[in-house]
Amino acid sequence: MSDDDIDRGVPEARKLAWGAVYKPRYSGVATFMRQELREDPDAWDGVEVGLIGAPFDGGVTNRPGARHGPRALRDQSTLMGRVNHQTGVRPYDWAVSADLGDVPIEGVYELDRAIDDIEAFYAKVVAAGVVPLTAGGDHSITLPIMRAISKHRGGPVGMVHFDAHCDTGPELFGHKHHHGGPFRCAVEDGALDPRRTIQIGIRGPAEALWDFSYDSGMTVIHIEELYAMGLDAAVARARDVVGAGPTYVSFDVDGMDPVYAPGTGTPEVGGFTAFEAQKMLRGLMGLDIVGGDVVEVSPPFDTANITALNGVQMMWEMLCLMADRIGREKGRIET
Amino acid sequence: MSDDDIDRGVPEARKLAWGAVYKPRYSGVATFMRQELREDPDAWDGVEVGLIGAPFDGGVTNRPGARHGPRALRDQSTLMGRVNHQTGVRPYDWAVSADLGDVPIEGVYELDRAIDDIEAFYAKVVAAGVVPLTAGGDHSITLPIMRAISKHRGGPVGMVHFDAHCDTGPELFGHKHHHGGPFRCAVEDGALDPRRTIQIGIRGPAEALWDFSYDSGMTVIHIEELYAMGLDAAVARARDVVGAGPTYVSFDVDGMDPVYAPGTGTPEVGGFTAFEAQKMLRGLMGLDIVGGDVVEVSPPFDTANITALNGVQMMWEMLCLMADRIGREKGRIET
Amino acid sequence: MSDDDIDRGVPEARKLAWGAVYKPRYSGVATFMRQELREDPDAWDGVEVGLIGAPFDGGVTNRPGARHGPRALRDQSTLMGRVNHQTGVRPYDWAVSADLGDVPIEGVYELDRAIDDIEAFYAKVVAAGVVPLTAGGDHSITLPIMRAISKHRGGPVGMVHFDAHCDTGPELFGHKHHHGGPFRCAVEDGALDPRRTIQIGIRGPAEALWDFSYDSGMTVIHIEELYAMGLDAAVARARDVVGAGPTYVSFDVDGMDPVYAPGTGTPEVGGFTAFEAQKMLRGLMGLDIVGGDVVEVSPPFDTANITALNGVQMMWEMLCLMADRIGREKGRIET
Amino acid sequence: MSDDDIDRGVPEARKLAWGAVYKPRYSGVATFMRQELREDPDAWDGVEVGLIGAPFDGGVTNRPGARHGPRALRDQSTLMGRVNHQTGVRPYDWAVSADLGDVPIEGVYELDRAIDDIEAFYAKVVAAGVVPLTAGGDHSITLPIMRAISKHRGGPVGMVHFDAHCDTGPELFGHKHHHGGPFRCAVEDGALDPRRTIQIGIRGPAEALWDFSYDSGMTVIHIEELYAMGLDAAVARARDVVGAGPTYVSFDVDGMDPVYAPGTGTPEVGGFTAFEAQKMLRGLMGLDIVGGDVVEVSPPFDTANITALNGVQMMWEMLCLMADRIGREKGRIET
Amino acid sequence: MSDDDIDRGVPEARKLAWGAVYKPRYSGVATFMRQELREDPDAWDGVEVGLIGAPFDGGVTNRPGARHGPRALRDQSTLMGRVNHQTGVRPYDWAVSADLGDVPIEGVYELDRAIDDIEAFYAKVVAAGVVPLTAGGDHSITLPIMRAISKHRGGPVGMVHFDAHCDTGPELFGHKHHHGGPFRCAVEDGALDPRRTIQIGIRGPAEALWDFSYDSGMTVIHIEELYAMGLDAAVARARDVVGAGPTYVSFDVDGMDPVYAPGTGTPEVGGFTAFEAQKMLRGLMGLDIVGGDVVEVSPPFDTANITALNGVQMMWEMLCLMADRIGREKGRIET
Amino acid sequence: MSDDDIDRGVPEARKLAWGAVYKPRYSGVATFMRQELREDPDAWDGVEVGLIGAPFDGGVTNRPGARHGPRALRDQSTLMGRVNHQTGVRPYDWAVSADLGDVPIEGVYELDRAIDDIEAFYAKVVAAGVVPLTAGGDHSITLPIMRAISKHRGGPVGMVHFDAHCDTGPELFGHKHHHGGPFRCAVEDGALDPRRTIQIGIRGPAEALWDFSYDSGMTVIHIEELYAMGLDAAVARARDVVGAGPTYVSFDVDGMDPVYAPGTGTPEVGGFTAFEAQKMLRGLMGLDIVGGDVVEVSPPFDTANITALNGVQMMWEMLCLMADRIGREKGRIET
Repeated sequence: MSDDDIDRGVPEARKLAWGAVYKPRYSGVATFMRQELREDPDAWDGVEVGLIGAPFDGGVTNRPGARHGPRALRDQSTLMGRVNHQTGVRPYDWAVSADLGDVPIEGVYELDRAIDDIEAFYAKVVAAGVVPLTAGGDHSITLPIMRAISKHRGGPVGMVHFDAHCDTGPELFGHKHHHGGPFRCAVEDGALDPRRTIQIGIRGPAEALWDFSYDSGMTVIHIEELYAMGLDAAVARARDVVGAGPTYVSFDVDGMDPVYAPGTGTPEVGGFTAFEAQKMLRGLMGLDIVGGDVVEVSPPFDTANITALNGVQMMWEMLCLMADRIGREKGRIET
Repeated sequence: MSDDDIDRGVPEARKLAWGAVYKPRYSGVATFMRQELREDPDAWDGVEVGLIGAPFDGGVTNRPGARHGPRALRDQSTLMGRVNHQTGVRPYDWAVSADLGDVPIEGVYELDRAIDDIEAFYAKVVAAGVVPLTAGGDHSITLPIMRAISKHRGGPVGMVHFDAHCDTGPELFGHKHHHGGPFRCAVEDGALDPRRTIQIGIRGPAEALWDFSYDSGMTVIHIEELYAMGLDAAVARARDVVGAGPTYVSFDVDGMDPVYAPGTGTPEVGGFTAFEAQKMLRGLMGLDIVGGDVVEVSPPFDTANITALNGVQMMWEMLCLMADRIGREKGRIET
Repeated sequence: MSDDDIDRGVPEARKLAWGAVYKPRYSGVATFMRQELREDPDAWDGVEVGLIGAPFDGGVTNRPGARHGPRALRDQSTLMGRVNHQTGVRPYDWAVSADLGDVPIEGVYELDRAIDDIEAFYAKVVAAGVVPLTAGGDHSITLPIMRAISKHRGGPVGMVHFDAHCDTGPELFGHKHHHGGPFRCAVEDGALDPRRTIQIGIRGPAEALWDFSYDSGMTVIHIEELYAMGLDAAVARARDVVGAGPTYVSFDVDGMDPVYAPGTGTPEVGGFTAFEAQKMLRGLMGLDIVGGDVVEVSPPFDTANITALNGVQMMWEMLCLMADRIGREKGRIET
Repeated sequence: MSDDDIDRGVPEARKLAWGAVYKPRYSGVATFMRQELREDPDAWDGVEVGLIGAPFDGGVTNRPGARHGPRALRDQSTLMGRVNHQTGVRPYDWAVSADLGDVPIEGVYELDRAIDDIEAFYAKVVAAGVVPLTAGGDHSITLPIMRAISKHRGGPVGMVHFDAHCDTGPELFGHKHHHGGPFRCAVEDGALDPRRTIQIGIRGPAEALWDFSYDSGMTVIHIEELYAMGLDAAVARARDVVGAGPTYVSFDVDGMDPVYAPGTGTPEVGGFTAFEAQKMLRGLMGLDIVGGDVVEVSPPFDTANITALNGVQMMWEMLCLMADRIGREKGRIET
Repeated sequence: MSDDDIDRGVPEARKLAWGAVYKPRYSGVATFMRQELREDPDAWDGVEVGLIGAPFDGGVTNRPGARHGPRALRDQSTLMGRVNHQTGVRPYDWAVSADLGDVPIEGVYELDRAIDDIEAFYAKVVAAGVVPLTAGGDHSITLPIMRAISKHRGGPVGMVHFDAHCDTGPELFGHKHHHGGPFRCAVEDGALDPRRTIQIGIRGPAEALWDFSYDSGMTVIHIEELYAMGLDAAVARARDVVGAGPTYVSFDVDGMDPVYAPGTGTPEVGGFTAFEAQKMLRGLMGLDIVGGDVVEVSPPFDTANITALNGVQMMWEMLCLMADRIGREKGRIET
Repeated sequence: MSDDDIDRGVPEARKLAWGAVYKPRYSGVATFMRQELREDPDAWDGVEVGLIGAPFDGGVTNRPGARHGPRALRDQSTLMGRVNHQTGVRPYDWAVSADLGDVPIEGVYELDRAIDDIEAFYAKVVAAGVVPLTAGGDHSITLPIMRAISKHRGGPVGMVHFDAHCDTGPELFGHKHHHGGPFRCAVEDGALDPRRTIQIGIRGPAEALWDFSYDSGMTVIHIEELYAMGLDAAVARARDVVGAGPTYVSFDVDGMDPVYAPGTGTPEVGGFTAFEAQKMLRGLMGLDIVGGDVVEVSPPFDTANITALNGVQMMWEMLCLMADRIGREKGRIET
């Protein structure tokens, strides 16, 4: 391999981001995907994909800790590569991404106020023309992100949702903004179109958590149905459900089996594998993805950082989807 | 979802058992499946399924620790749900279950005496009309349970047995009551009918551990045979082998691959997954299950409680099988 | 040792509580100190010391997880003995204690409402004549307990407080009921008498956390002062500060060095050892202790359960103090 | 099972190696597969398969620790059995194997010198007629082993290579002997025939790591291709590629999914399972295997020893392949 | 430092044992203190100190796992140095030691038979003129070792005993040979002279565990007494109690505080530190030490191997005591 | 506490650095002490203390992993406070510090070249007038830092050195630049004045590691001497040895007892505590400290991040020493 092979005409300024060939992976402050840290909104100019941490776990029903997710995901993200070997996407070359830091949240002791804090931040992100790719935090953070996106776009988004739970549950202890109910709220708020929503990997433990999904017209694929129909069919179904419209991708790590994601708040035995998750995500290539997140990584319950590693891999797969779309739109890809 | 939806006519007294909607899962003393603790035999009246701990690991050949299994399984059982999303079984509504505490064992330093202590306790359990569902402990505990059941019923039981090992081995260091031989003893004692016995997931490491199974007429499905025939075929085979007679289900967590059950005494690489185990167990619906156990969870060797979580999930799947049978017999299920 | 020696005239009914001689420590559902579980207030009659879990961590400023503290403390409490070898106290013989279960908290998403839920429960406890000994939970739980006690008694209590932080901080993110400020609130509410309050082990990291203590007249012993004056002098000082009046003992495990308490929310390097904590607690013998707690045990951050073990040891030391006082009052102790 | 059944005519001297029936697995100094320790080359007479540790990790690009691999693999190897239940191979009966200790490496601070130290040792091993089966160490150790073998045989070997990475990368930081490039060097040195080389499980993260493989004529099976074609087809392809010539088998544990091998230097999400690895290895029965290794087990990053366990299982599977070949050549197998 | 400084006239054959300067500590099969493995009694000729593993935990009352102690201690022993910096003892130069392997125990399921197996082995060891230094195993192993020594010598030994518990307890579940009672049995058997016995570090949890010690005339130093009198006084007291007669040293790691020994069966909060243990052991220099052991290291409960590390350090300190005595007797020490 | 109390006249721009009161500690990218990240040397203007990571562990003799130290130390540094409660130093107010990122090291496979890379970077740092405070990395990194400082200053520095080992060892495997010998090299290079050098906490395991220290005139305080003389005397001795000249402070975490620093390469039982380390470091107030480091934190061997926490606390204590000196020189401190 010659130096030319390594470079392939990529601007010098990008090399730092490329990884081991230029700088050891264990070296340096850990930012998402080793991209440049741009915490100040004034520095967002030119950023196409914003990698953002949402360190909030005030909405969990059982085990907390997802507030520590962003740092753990940043740390494991230093293992990510510079090309998607299967799809050929080169995320750092085809789109400009940056680490925008963590969402500032003042409502750390108030679920509803935290939700508002998050929405306010994402309103700025989408206003700046940045596609947000978020590392949670618990699943309650998706509602305000989705609200910001839909308000910015003037209409609801569709969603491909990987999870063990539908997260369309009712009020809990008098609160509707917990991590088991964001998508009920999103539909009620007009931020999410249930007919353009598909939920994959669903299982256990109570009807209250999936009744609304069925009633509102979402497509629900329970885990045993996923295996019965096959991954390819599920992907085709997802593409069919969301169509060409703006689509959000939300990946709750507890959709994976607990051996792939032990570090999470409400593990459910019997989920899909990381490879299967990658395959499904890669199948979404070409969709109009307007935002994405990986949520419910709880480092204190993790072991060997396996949940953070698998989680950030899915975040990277989403980044590839976004970079492919952006790269094509901007004419950066020579085929 | 309205309150009516949540309740669906279930008695108020049951709500406590239902989980997160009424009480956080992390709250309260951990009993099996968050069911009522009824340690005193005088309080067993009305109990249909008895959830029992058997904290004994005096029969292991390598790594000990299964004596700590019941507490770890109780702790993880607080994650279990109130409905089986695939089969629709509602275990807490369709049968009355309770945590009967741990088997009192005086023979902690004597394998044979411990076996007798266990049998004596289960004799009381079955005499009270309770179907026992046990959390081990090592596999040596199954023999006395099986003896108690077969004596009570006046004849041998059949068995669906998930494991990496046949556990029909010969004497070891002059003792036959170790964890590698309970089913040889059970056949010799007339407690187990080998022709109505199927062993699934078998692999490694020595003929001595499976010769008796073949010689006595058991059906042995090695792990590579399981994958070659498919899970559905294996389930069909199991149903065929045990038929309509009284059947015991024994689940050794080392039947699963070690990544699903690192916390066990004698891990064997190359087992089935937790999802596959669930699928096989759910395939046993409708059989006349007279008892069951999950054994060989050794918490000191576990990581992130994954073995306890997967183990108790299987215990819960068995509870669903039992509740379905009982619910139908008692006319509690409106279809 | 003869059987007589073992028994020493203790009622047969108590033997179960005594531990290893009668029942293996790993056996049975884990209740606090292996005492009887009496969750129903109707069953509190005759209970003198109530062992209670307060599974709440909504007030932390950094690492959560203390909601899982009560279960971890219950589990490690099975290692506790039946006699205090240094003081000679026999806690299970000299006072009637029971595990009253966990405080029911509905305000899991609302700090202020949770505080009220806790106070309501303890109002019932003290009304029943029970001395509460609580396992947290984060330190925000102490305020409502103290309120309930002081209201019941009609006046403020004194306090011996072991901690790395004074926990008399100001509002945080607009809330005053977080885990860094309970004792400021308690003073303001008239529940705590600052002149009868001593805080031991204080160190790091900001004046905001100790200014109020000095201003209100509390006695603050920073860790370097503790070592400079010696443990005996500190104990004497504590006895002098609280005097003969009603006194609460609050033990935040982060007062100990992080190697003794890694599993906590805000560890501070350079604390006292577990032995030193025991020595100081034993030095409080004879005081009029009207309640106590051990807080800030966060199991997800713990390792080898060392924080839970050290924490529950301190809870047991408090139980000995209470049992000694009660036993003397009731004339149960033959000297 | 009678004593005769246990013995089956095997020499008394072998019994010790057989495991649990004769000696508890937790007992004794841990040597590879519990075989005799023969560190002195003068004691290698009669040894057919040499089990060797190569404690070197000076060639890693990210996380170190593989220097501790040999001890961890030895420890877990005590769990290995005495018969391969699927293939029927009895490795300890069909070939004479011994633990030759660890390669002495003086160049611990010099990558290139270490490579030479390793080659010098293996030159002695192969000169003694011993087939080397090595536990790494990082993947840089394979180059000198391969050199020694090819020099001894007078020509390049073929290879079946399981890995996430092709390890045919270019120079890194001015060095070509790192763990990402051994097979480029081996081809360049004439030690490895690229047309008789197949690489299975390849994925992520950069073309630089696989361009040479394609250019030199190696057969590369990426992970998604592996699943698309099926394991049987991949095995057939491997047998076809290497043919009847001398073949080396190199197993990098990071070819497995990180849940099966968290303890490794450069984990890549989305690999094959341990069962699949076993199946592929067993499919190589009958090939002329002249050496093998398991590399990149990094115990400090492992959890519950799962990587070491899975790694040593693969080492044992290779031992079975070698023993089968040797046993047939020596006429030891009665079919 | 010149080569001469390194060598100091030590025979070439010893260099291997000396550690890092000659061979990396992570390299090679782990034997005790990296001494030669001599499992065959025929190879014991010339051995002066025998390093022996006793992998038995059948006598524990709570947490098992000490059967895995010897391997963990061997692994950590590779960190031990070649000179005692404080006392100047050079253990590998002043005495010939070897790793004699593990005690063969057939009575793995029978406490009493195991005790006999152990005694039989040590009878051979002492008959060969070897001073045994043992790594347990639980404390029940000390009785048979002591029996073998006292029978060989024709009279009881004295003992310096470091522990949290006196281990002179009565029968438990009908057995006297458990880990809480070896020294009661040893006195009753005439193997131990209670008046020449001192027990240091004693605390918790029941009189039954120390009454016999007092009654029989042993000197018991509770932990608070140890700190009150000071370590130097305690050492002086120990030397006074055992005098010039043959003395056994038994070190139960639970004598140390649980942060120094989390990996043990019955941890007791509030023990001495590792440094204090070293200081006390070094204070025993010159005594006639006829055997020693380190017991109750339970690796499955350990974290970061800290218990094994601290345990083997104490074993090494005992080795220094033995080597000093032997070296002086043999005239090997030039002062 | 009023807002004025919180602010105390500190510039608004500093508040972000102050911690929990303004921003949760778990939030945001982890930089050292939550100070601004300034990786570009062009941005160093005005920086007074440079917080730098040196991710290199190529010089270890046993367990690697210290290359991962800087990230782990950054993560734990978010727990550090804004005032030193004992000395009153306010490090963020009294000096301008920044996170300068990690030293770029190209010689990852060459010990000597890495040493040169490090020196080149620090030459730039000191040329910019920045006092370097480094997080290692193994101890081999101190040599090039010291070289850069001494060259810049035109003469050797003095040193206060906390460690279990003198690190003045001879060549190892033909290399002198390993982690056991930096201070021998530094003396030989004229970078370190041995008569102005004190080494505290020394113990085990070989003379080769301390002979040079004595011979060259360093003051060596073995751990038992430290306790015999007392910490205050040791501090006085240190102040006396280094005097008023430029002094470097090097803190190897293995100077602490392994329970305080399990995550390190060559742990030595029997060290000082974290509190004692703090006390000694605080005793150095007022010295002319020209650089400092905390080395040998190896996260893969750590547990509960205790080593990283204790290590970064010492780094923070050094920052306080530096800030006090700088603050006084700049007239920022109102006494």
